[in-house]
Amino acid sequence: MSTLGAELTVVGQGVIEIRLPFSAKLTQQHGYMHAGAVTAVLDSACGYAALSLAADDKEVLTVELKESLLAPTAGEVLIARAQIKRAGKTLTVYTADAFAITGSGEKLVATMLATIMTVPTQR
Amino acid sequence: MSTLGAELTVVGQGVIEIRLPFSAKLTQQHGYMHAGAVTAVLDSACGYAALSLAADDKEVLTVELKESLLAPTAGEVLIARAQIKRAGKTLTVYTADAFAITGSGEKLVATMLATIMTVPTQR
Amino acid sequence: MSTLGAELTVVGQGVIEIRLPFSAKLTQQHGYMHAGAVTAVLDSACGYAALSLAADDKEVLTVELKESLLAPTAGEVLIARAQIKRAGKTLTVYTADAFAITGSGEKLVATMLATIMTVPTQR
Amino acid sequence: MSTLGAELTVVGQGVIEIRLPFSAKLTQQHGYMHAGAVTAVLDSACGYAALSLAADDKEVLTVELKESLLAPTAGEVLIARAQIKRAGKTLTVYTADAFAITGSGEKLVATMLATIMTVPTQR
Repeated sequence: MSTLGAELTVVGQGVIEIRLPFSAKLTQQHGYMHAGAVTAVLDSACGYAALSLAADDKEVLTVELKESLLAPTAGEVLIARAQIKRAGKTLTVYTADAFAITGSGEKLVATMLATIMTVPTQR
Repeated sequence: MSTLGAELTVVGQGVIEIRLPFSAKLTQQHGYMHAGAVTAVLDSACGYAALSLAADDKEVLTVELKESLLAPTAGEVLIARAQIKRAGKTLTVYTADAFAITGSGEKLVATMLATIMTVPTQR
Repeated sequence: MSTLGAELTVVGQGVIEIRLPFSAKLTQQHGYMHAGAVTAVLDSACGYAALSLAADDKEVLTVELKESLLAPTAGEVLIARAQIKRAGKTLTVYTADAFAITGSGEKLVATMLATIMTVPTQR
Repeated sequence: MSTLGAELTVVGQGVIEIRLPFSAKLTQQHGYMHAGAVTAVLDSACGYAALSLAADDKEVLTVELKESLLAPTAGEVLIARAQIKRAGKTLTVYTADAFAITGSGEKLVATMLATIMTVPTQR
């Protein structure tokens, strides 16, 4: 997160928002944010959503993720919003959407479905 | 790629290898590499594999990706290897595996299936 | 669809509902519907949603799908609801949820993200 | 499986082959096999591969699947081959490829990545 320059802006029970300002090191030749950065922010949003629901002695592990990149990601800020889709005993599924923010509004640029496992904290 | 510190080590027709040394900024509390970094490297490997097959006036765009994270990623170097699964007129599907390299060998830590679209270069 | 015994119950612009009554041939030893049947219904819902948006001289082709199976599928009827996530020139992404209906209500049992391509009708 | 008319032709430790002859009820207007049928066969192949590795008092459950449909599925027989990608304590990941068999050879038509959970048999 700090490597990317992202910021956690909203935390609820199983609901998270992460904001990532566009910067030169995250964009490619045409000014679009790299898919890798968009993916990392969506995955982080799912992970933090899972952490917000986990007991204090647990940590979370992404088991798998599925992502559709819907539009080139141009703008000033990227916002990723994650929420719980269904909680299970071992595995919980989250959905997250990423929006590129420009002067004129929000544009949906990517969507993710992630499976997260809660495991005992390792010391 | 340069933000992560990754290096392209092998380039063939539709076959790519990327090496990423572990560094403090890419690892989390337990010394494991962040899923986001592993994902970014796998996605880059697929993207470069696609670029190696694209005509000079084309560029490539990841349409979607699917990834299973198979084991905690600990070691000294992460290697991602991508190869073409099937080429289509518009869309090409790539598979990529990520291995964590330690003193005692390679361990498969993640696998990806990605769909990439070839589009005319924008100027 | 007819092999499965499914029925299209709602058709809107890019929004579809399919109902599939549970039957012995679609369930396994414990009375749960087979994942394959659930998947086929979700995929069909996405396909019909895409068809509802396609011009008369076009047909639709599922490029890829990603599905999380969230709970064992027991009940009397399976309902799949698909809607458009984002339309593109070549590719459109749909989301679909499957619910198992019992006397006491609906239960979310699976969710899908599918990429569909619109192509000229072959004659 | 019996609803589809499929046949299990090879069983090894974590390796499975399923053959499904094309039939009118599984094909659509152009003679291509429905994506739903291809998906069901790939998912079954992964499931049987998992069962071949499971202890006698365990059963298997597909947690999620990711599939790319690579080419229209025309031919006489569909063959799906599944193999283990990585075994875990709770979750195991399988890959499976589907081939359409015609007089002139095999054609890769779809590929799947599936996560399967082993659970105690319910009685």
